[in-house]
Amino acid sequence: MTTKIDIGILGATGIVGQEFVAALEDHPWFRIAWLAASERSAGKRYEDAAPWKLDRPIPRSIADMIVESCNPSGSPILVFSGLDSSVAGDIESEFAAAGRTVVSNARNYRMADDVPLLIPEINPEHLRLLGQQHTVRGWSGKIVTNPNCSTIVMTLALAPLTQFGLETVMVTTLQAVSGAGYPGVSSLDILGNILPYIPGEEPKMESETQKILGTVEADRIRPHSVVVSAQTTRVPVTNGHTALISVKLTESPTDADVIDAFRSFRGRPQIEDLPTAPNHPIVYLDNPDRPQPKYDVHLEGGMSISVGRLRNCPVLDIKFVTLGHNTVRGAAGAAILNAELMKVDGLI
Amino acid sequence: MTTKIDIGILGATGIVGQEFVAALEDHPWFRIAWLAASERSAGKRYEDAAPWKLDRPIPRSIADMIVESCNPSGSPILVFSGLDSSVAGDIESEFAAAGRTVVSNARNYRMADDVPLLIPEINPEHLRLLGQQHTVRGWSGKIVTNPNCSTIVMTLALAPLTQFGLETVMVTTLQAVSGAGYPGVSSLDILGNILPYIPGEEPKMESETQKILGTVEADRIRPHSVVVSAQTTRVPVTNGHTALISVKLTESPTDADVIDAFRSFRGRPQIEDLPTAPNHPIVYLDNPDRPQPKYDVHLEGGMSISVGRLRNCPVLDIKFVTLGHNTVRGAAGAAILNAELMKVDGLI
Amino acid sequence: MTTKIDIGILGATGIVGQEFVAALEDHPWFRIAWLAASERSAGKRYEDAAPWKLDRPIPRSIADMIVESCNPSGSPILVFSGLDSSVAGDIESEFAAAGRTVVSNARNYRMADDVPLLIPEINPEHLRLLGQQHTVRGWSGKIVTNPNCSTIVMTLALAPLTQFGLETVMVTTLQAVSGAGYPGVSSLDILGNILPYIPGEEPKMESETQKILGTVEADRIRPHSVVVSAQTTRVPVTNGHTALISVKLTESPTDADVIDAFRSFRGRPQIEDLPTAPNHPIVYLDNPDRPQPKYDVHLEGGMSISVGRLRNCPVLDIKFVTLGHNTVRGAAGAAILNAELMKVDGLI
Amino acid sequence: MTTKIDIGILGATGIVGQEFVAALEDHPWFRIAWLAASERSAGKRYEDAAPWKLDRPIPRSIADMIVESCNPSGSPILVFSGLDSSVAGDIESEFAAAGRTVVSNARNYRMADDVPLLIPEINPEHLRLLGQQHTVRGWSGKIVTNPNCSTIVMTLALAPLTQFGLETVMVTTLQAVSGAGYPGVSSLDILGNILPYIPGEEPKMESETQKILGTVEADRIRPHSVVVSAQTTRVPVTNGHTALISVKLTESPTDADVIDAFRSFRGRPQIEDLPTAPNHPIVYLDNPDRPQPKYDVHLEGGMSISVGRLRNCPVLDIKFVTLGHNTVRGAAGAAILNAELMKVDGLI
Repeated sequence: MTTKIDIGILGATGIVGQEFVAALEDHPWFRIAWLAASERSAGKRYEDAAPWKLDRPIPRSIADMIVESCNPSGSPILVFSGLDSSVAGDIESEFAAAGRTVVSNARNYRMADDVPLLIPEINPEHLRLLGQQHTVRGWSGKIVTNPNCSTIVMTLALAPLTQFGLETVMVTTLQAVSGAGYPGVSSLDILGNILPYIPGEEPKMESETQKILGTVEADRIRPHSVVVSAQTTRVPVTNGHTALISVKLTESPTDADVIDAFRSFRGRPQIEDLPTAPNHPIVYLDNPDRPQPKYDVHLEGGMSISVGRLRNCPVLDIKFVTLGHNTVRGAAGAAILNAELMKVDGLI
Repeated sequence: MTTKIDIGILGATGIVGQEFVAALEDHPWFRIAWLAASERSAGKRYEDAAPWKLDRPIPRSIADMIVESCNPSGSPILVFSGLDSSVAGDIESEFAAAGRTVVSNARNYRMADDVPLLIPEINPEHLRLLGQQHTVRGWSGKIVTNPNCSTIVMTLALAPLTQFGLETVMVTTLQAVSGAGYPGVSSLDILGNILPYIPGEEPKMESETQKILGTVEADRIRPHSVVVSAQTTRVPVTNGHTALISVKLTESPTDADVIDAFRSFRGRPQIEDLPTAPNHPIVYLDNPDRPQPKYDVHLEGGMSISVGRLRNCPVLDIKFVTLGHNTVRGAAGAAILNAELMKVDGLI
Repeated sequence: MTTKIDIGILGATGIVGQEFVAALEDHPWFRIAWLAASERSAGKRYEDAAPWKLDRPIPRSIADMIVESCNPSGSPILVFSGLDSSVAGDIESEFAAAGRTVVSNARNYRMADDVPLLIPEINPEHLRLLGQQHTVRGWSGKIVTNPNCSTIVMTLALAPLTQFGLETVMVTTLQAVSGAGYPGVSSLDILGNILPYIPGEEPKMESETQKILGTVEADRIRPHSVVVSAQTTRVPVTNGHTALISVKLTESPTDADVIDAFRSFRGRPQIEDLPTAPNHPIVYLDNPDRPQPKYDVHLEGGMSISVGRLRNCPVLDIKFVTLGHNTVRGAAGAAILNAELMKVDGLI
Repeated sequence: MTTKIDIGILGATGIVGQEFVAALEDHPWFRIAWLAASERSAGKRYEDAAPWKLDRPIPRSIADMIVESCNPSGSPILVFSGLDSSVAGDIESEFAAAGRTVVSNARNYRMADDVPLLIPEINPEHLRLLGQQHTVRGWSGKIVTNPNCSTIVMTLALAPLTQFGLETVMVTTLQAVSGAGYPGVSSLDILGNILPYIPGEEPKMESETQKILGTVEADRIRPHSVVVSAQTTRVPVTNGHTALISVKLTESPTDADVIDAFRSFRGRPQIEDLPTAPNHPIVYLDNPDRPQPKYDVHLEGGMSISVGRLRNCPVLDIKFVTLGHNTVRGAAGAAILNAELMKVDGLI
């Protein structure tokens, strides 16, 4: 691949936007050519507009770029969106109508019938929905979305279990504060405390999972029949969503079968050797006190999820603990992997 | 009640022992007359032997008492035990054999057939087991235990639901570090981190609950048939165990029925107006983001648990969030309430 | 005192406003009659407008009061101000011009020549400045201020040392997040981290101290000659500013002299037995690892500061550690104590 | 350098020992050949004996090594010591007597007249003391030490200022919990809290600095005349000691002079291009709210310290903030850099 594709970033100054910047700075296929954010940031140097919150330094080549308004004129063909959902709906459709390919982390179009809710290891065939966007909406461009951060972490762990007949899922999450953006969660709310409620989070986990694991039939998604019940909490952790999961299966695999299913799980990203793809989407840890955010959140650059503590569940069938990096695998890295898959599939 | 009963405290220097001291300092019925701990502490002033970790000051009247060895000669008839389970087994049986009444927070005898695992609001009739201790073991004294801290918090919330036919329970806990004693959890393990494993905790929650909710039949406990599946974690919170619970019921109460069951729940401690009894064992909070450890752990001096976020569970029937003070309602306060009930029942 | 004085609270919905509400709910002299905040809050019930962040429950008698706009018409004669400094300047002068007595925690008028910067134990005679406000500004009302939270904590510890000839002070603070209000410090900035910079804080500590310790000469303050150098940091603590202080003195008191000076320190609030006055404005702690926010921030309801670790300073003369509750003694409690002093002095 | 030198690690299972393992795993000059720890660990696989607490995985090649006792027979000629000071005194002298070169992080020999207290950028000529060890003590081996973690961070920042005539230093530290080892600081002591006392830490900073900055005269150290006053605290940060420093100088450099002195500071490690040497021992940060542990502790692999907020001090002359990685630059990395310097100087 000799020439890099110019890309833009919508919502470039937020936490997810910053993760896009950090992850795309040295990307082998894409080149950051355009940054856009709210009117308050437009016209400023990126470094002045973005309250940089990653523990790696701000890339010097990007720091001096001038932030633009979120207007498709002047933007590259491919844009990543880390926009807040309060504005993403209108802006993303405007870009799609203007012929841009929008690879979005926002929730606005995730559940739309004609929009793929993509996890490339799980449902690459959902990209077939894109034709509907042109036909029905008349867009010359398109929108592809990735799921909510906690949904991605959980669904990656569930995907290898579908072969055993996935019936029901009970999940409780302990989510990191970076998932709420910046400034996001006030220190007065979370120091030494637990927030037992994240507005809108539980319904997202319960509905998105069925779509992600669904099949494409006649250009529509037939949702998976799995029933999910979620309880979501915020905890004083910076990065890394932990999910404690119990599942009911129609079959009765042994523990060894299940661990093998986790460890051998691969998908198109691994087959195509996409630049952002982890070698092991799921790392199963044998130590009984793992995974832990402190040690395991950065596996394969944050693109692998970790699973541990597989054991029998007295109520359903098996239970285990899952952890993933919410702003990498659960947001910016997820969208970039989506774009990479679209590239090899000729959709960009 | 004109004369206070002299009591002793086994394991007086640990965190639970400190909670006993703080709670019994001004108790209307009991007077701290004797403190005992390990040989390392014996002979020292209490203040010098105990690394005081409560946020209230050490009681001046207790600070100068000399710590004794854990030997029944010289101890009062009634002793509270905050001993570590590594030594509680032998010491507590020695005290019971020597005619002492041991009201214990240790886990060693909790599941023994002839030992009440008491929550006075739930199973006061389990005290009938005590006769077996004399008959079978030949003890002139006796042992009564309270459940594990996370079990108490959960089971108090489950008790009002038994009227609706409690079938299965899924629970995930987020437990405070004070539950591990002092020094307990290293700061290197928990600052900005989550520990997904607490050794031995899940089996305790799964088995103790059945005994607590069981019925006494012919001087034996017939365990409740409820099936419990627990996932337990440690979080960077000082005091307050949070439990996220889903339950399956045989009946179909409305939300209003369930909230009314929580709010109207009362037991012997309230009827007898025991000194340590909360007016409301369960406080249901309407605000969608409660309970939270920061705000709700001290309700009624830490003796009430709080419940919130009641809603439908897509997998089982209903789900909700529960919080309780692990070293008060979940340990020292639980044992003191047990002793108060035994007093009014003539067992002390 | 048979009839309580009606008071109002400006900025009632912020953290300092909430502390005013909590502290004045049962005040023996004052009665909360009026709450005011920004236009966004005006017209709402207090409970709906204020994101209550104290660990005590919101007072039920106040929860249903309707929040007003910050307009003097309709306000009581006495108002406490917890306004943000971005708006306090104009609003407070408007109230003073309209005949109201404004007892303010805002910084806007602290350094004005005719405005007392009051700590009742230290400089009650500074109230004599008030005549100037009428003469020069033509106000029929008046403004009295209390110092910045970290200044109060430090200056209370310095006041007893002025008898030994206070020359220079080096201070480093470790300040709690509640000092920044709500939402204030983002959790992403402070979890597991230290912020070495609090905008504007160091100059305040360096200049306010000289005014507070100054003398009134011909209706003007002659500032104290002490030179202060401050370094201020934010730390992951909820309540309690810690200050590590070294001082140079002209005299050479023994450690016992200094500790006695701390412990015997009293002022007008103690003489007059003001309702909010602590019995001991300064509590000296003998234990070498104290004071600590966790244990000592609530001394005498948060109105006492604690001091410990007095020892020789190789560079200056002595050094020690000080701690105080920043939103109580350092803000709302400070203002209320000011008003109580003004009451007994016939200024209200 | 074709063949690597075999090295051993004393105290290999502690936090500093783990940092030695991580840093030496791929060292170009040294090869880990021998691990030793207490009798409790001896005979176990390293992975089983060491509670691994670094956020990088345990090196696989080291995990299976068998831990030995701390006995010089069988040990390589060069050993790094991360021993606890309670045992380091006897063990290290035994190794030195047995002909081993001990590069130690322990405090036991730091202030001995014949033992270099080495920071290679500052005082490489102190290695000349080593001859005394043979002459006076009769050791065929030798001991070299690095300073206390907080001393190193501070002294590196002070070294460039000696050219301006360093007279006095006031320092307050905010130290990370990893400095206390594992399990070290209990979570009950530090969650949401500050510990204002670290036993023995302040005298170390006050005395070690004079020796480090001293000159060698006739095989003895003539201590620098600088007077240091330290206040040290523990804060809820995992890695990174922050030091807030004020200094008095005999000369009057401009801010630009001082910043240039920081930025241009180099020493033997940079000249010799030692493997562990940072390119910039001191990184001066222009942003007013830096350095912060979260962002700056990992500069150049943790071997650079960062400095910021240079400004006038009203009491002394200048003040600034310094940050360094306490277990890397302040412990294991410091010792390794010492060994590298000794290697190029022919002392190993």
